Amino acid sequence: MSEKLTHLREDGSAHMVDVSDKAVTKRVATAQAVFNTREDVVPMLMTGNLPKGEALGTARIAGIMAAKRTWELVPLCHPLPISKVSVDFTAQQSSVIVTAQVTTKGVTGVEMEALTAASVAALTLYDMVKAVDKSATVTDIQVLAKSGGKSGDWERGQ
Amino acid sequence: MSEKLTHLREDGSAHMVDVSDKAVTKRVATAQAVFNTREDVVPMLMTGNLPKGEALGTARIAGIMAAKRTWELVPLCHPLPISKVSVDFTAQQSSVIVTAQVTTKGVTGVEMEALTAASVAALTLYDMVKAVDKSATVTDIQVLAKSGGKSGDWERGQ
Amino acid sequence: MSEKLTHLREDGSAHMVDVSDKAVTKRVATAQAVFNTREDVVPMLMTGNLPKGEALGTARIAGIMAAKRTWELVPLCHPLPISKVSVDFTAQQSSVIVTAQVTTKGVTGVEMEALTAASVAALTLYDMVKAVDKSATVTDIQVLAKSGGKSGDWERGQ
Amino acid sequence: MSEKLTHLREDGSAHMVDVSDKAVTKRVATAQAVFNTREDVVPMLMTGNLPKGEALGTARIAGIMAAKRTWELVPLCHPLPISKVSVDFTAQQSSVIVTAQVTTKGVTGVEMEALTAASVAALTLYDMVKAVDKSATVTDIQVLAKSGGKSGDWERGQ
Amino acid sequence: MSEKLTHLREDGSAHMVDVSDKAVTKRVATAQAVFNTREDVVPMLMTGNLPKGEALGTARIAGIMAAKRTWELVPLCHPLPISKVSVDFTAQQSSVIVTAQVTTKGVTGVEMEALTAASVAALTLYDMVKAVDKSATVTDIQVLAKSGGKSGDWERGQ
Amino acid sequence: MSEKLTHLREDGSAHMVDVSDKAVTKRVATAQAVFNTREDVVPMLMTGNLPKGEALGTARIAGIMAAKRTWELVPLCHPLPISKVSVDFTAQQSSVIVTAQVTTKGVTGVEMEALTAASVAALTLYDMVKAVDKSATVTDIQVLAKSGGKSGDWERGQ
Repeated sequence: MSEKLTHLREDGSAHMVDVSDKAVTKRVATAQAVFNTREDVVPMLMTGNLPKGEALGTARIAGIMAAKRTWELVPLCHPLPISKVSVDFTAQQSSVIVTAQVTTKGVTGVEMEALTAASVAALTLYDMVKAVDKSATVTDIQVLAKSGGKSGDWERGQ
Repeated sequence: MSEKLTHLREDGSAHMVDVSDKAVTKRVATAQAVFNTREDVVPMLMTGNLPKGEALGTARIAGIMAAKRTWELVPLCHPLPISKVSVDFTAQQSSVIVTAQVTTKGVTGVEMEALTAASVAALTLYDMVKAVDKSATVTDIQVLAKSGGKSGDWERGQ
Repeated sequence: MSEKLTHLREDGSAHMVDVSDKAVTKRVATAQAVFNTREDVVPMLMTGNLPKGEALGTARIAGIMAAKRTWELVPLCHPLPISKVSVDFTAQQSSVIVTAQVTTKGVTGVEMEALTAASVAALTLYDMVKAVDKSATVTDIQVLAKSGGKSGDWERGQ
Repeated sequence: MSEKLTHLREDGSAHMVDVSDKAVTKRVATAQAVFNTREDVVPMLMTGNLPKGEALGTARIAGIMAAKRTWELVPLCHPLPISKVSVDFTAQQSSVIVTAQVTTKGVTGVEMEALTAASVAALTLYDMVKAVDKSATVTDIQVLAKSGGKSGDWERGQ
Repeated sequence: MSEKLTHLREDGSAHMVDVSDKAVTKRVATAQAVFNTREDVVPMLMTGNLPKGEALGTARIAGIMAAKRTWELVPLCHPLPISKVSVDFTAQQSSVIVTAQVTTKGVTGVEMEALTAASVAALTLYDMVKAVDKSATVTDIQVLAKSGGKSGDWERGQ
Repeated sequence: MSEKLTHLREDGSAHMVDVSDKAVTKRVATAQAVFNTREDVVPMLMTGNLPKGEALGTARIAGIMAAKRTWELVPLCHPLPISKVSVDFTAQQSSVIVTAQVTTKGVTGVEMEALTAASVAALTLYDMVKAVDKSATVTDIQVLAKSGGKSGDWERGQ
């Protein structure tokens, strides 16, 4: 790996790096965020007993839409033609694991898009529970795996 | 605290709750996110030895701008006239603590805006270090304190 | 009613009219759109038999988020502090009625916001069924009722 | 045609479908919306007798700009490199027909973009006449024709 | 006038200054931009001889819409409830003067909104003439006058 | 060069021109804006003596982010996959020269993106000094050079 930050030039000033000569390939990234709350709040989010239980669905859409807008939020990110986004939720005893997967056929990886999708979905869960649990937190936002591109495949912990 | 999610109606469907009769008061919220990376990466972000060291400044602006757009990202958030935003960074041995404070004179609290500012600033740090540390994570996204509004002042852990 | 378009000046050029001296009052508007499709497609949207049936929920969130962005879409609309949005769906034999209600405490009415919410929710339904029914249409986009403001209450057909 | 909604997965949850392996081809879609108002209002919109008659021009720009933002409005739409947009108006006795045509060289069709352009242009007409005709409506939002892509050419009513 | 930049804190870091205690008053700002091109291009923009001459109308709408989005573009600007925007054009021999006026009833001035409206309208003129005059320029972007707020009325050159 | 405005059709109505058959090539554009202020204000912007001097860094990020959103601001611009953006500042006695360079691998030139980056960066400087110098101006917004595309290379004054 390089030993300096690619987004800073020699004098330390920020720029959006040139990707015009990079190859267009299929790239996939998976990221997660963990939403931690009280044990009794988790079932409220899952809401399986209500005719319509739109808490997770709302967070899912928030994550998908945020993935598409990553380049508007993260200043030095390139706009990318996103090909696919999915956001999934797994209930644990007192937490919900948010997993986001993003695919592109483009010149840069989509780690930022996957991280943004997972983070905004988790923040949307917080928004929904904050009246019942102000102390809820979001932790473990991280890339789980990526594939495609010159740097090749990568998987956390391997 | 109430025992159901305010953002879901009786049948579980989502809505944006009515705040038209809530009082306009000054409200402040402080939130944090912790960016964890390798010990040798932290000084690259602080970049005190470069003529211009814009890594933290870039993340700060990303956080401030994201706070203003929270209502575009989190589906059931109300648009708010934000009065003030600050984002600060504290270097630890192998992490950077991001603290965001948001103020409004409005009808709802600004916890979501402070959380969004901290989260997007932390994601921007990840964007800058991902070429040198793919394994970096963001943890401990949480509200630290809030004041103003009917529910009164609140501080984490008290 | 006035006999010329308020959004055009004497010479016919467009402007955003001055509302700085209008009173802040609570205003509510209700609007609808009707989504017409094949009879066998309606149950696919209602998806009551799937564990998660997120078609309507997705359209609902799309409508709510679009209401907040009306001023970005309709050039001469004023930005408004939206207080509440709800979007509801009623299945008919071969159509789905979308009803949107928007509330503000502001200086202008929210008819445009309610119309935009209903329209974008209906377009989102089209997006979901277009692979099975290209011929689906959206009709009867209209304001059903409004209240508040100097011009007083109004209800369609009365 | 397929017999289930492509935007929902097996369990009914929403996702943005994977288009990374679809071919890049030139695709065109034409859609319309009909704006219905009082007979005496139509000439106000056409404003041929004013030095500048910017009512239709304003709605046209609104439609063109909305086409480019379709992916921000419709949650499961893919961002697309739009190549061309035109929006046209035909006055009838008590209505204005809005026709929008969108072209892309991309991996998915542009029906949603054409529908969004026509709808937002029609809503902008409503915004301009609402002070003189609250009862105006938008009807007959539909795709008229599409070409390009694997599913081939399609024309309404054929 | 103060002798340091209000947008930088003691250590030089940027923040969005606190306006939560400022009074809500009516504020107006007028700004201009001058678009310079070849003498034969000016009449193409005025297009008085075409049935529809939408060059200036398009730039006007661009300016009005940009005024509303100033806070999204200029990082430390506060979101404001804009009450009115007008954009006007005056043809000179080889230039077009763009004048924008913005009104708010809010806690901060609207100079940035007026400057943004004038600038984006002028850039839109450039976009329209760039195929016939790459050398066109925009000059003299400046505030002409402002009123309202604690600092009182101000007029350029007085 | 052509003798009419490409963005207007025969009847003078605006449209977004068709670029679907243009070749994808690497294109670069450089543009500038000059920010003029009082001689004593220039060093406040450079802020070399403060631990963090984020005035220029903030304007740089504003310019980079605005370049990516040009198609949202300028109505008839095409969305483009921007490959690179840099924004630089050169202090003069009583002015700061802003230079922006944008690269794409796409079907249209990026002059508008470079002009927008330079303009918004300059407006951000105005925002920062307006409390100490209301009379500051932005002048000389112009394209300096462009390369790539069918029309070939072009340099101002040659």
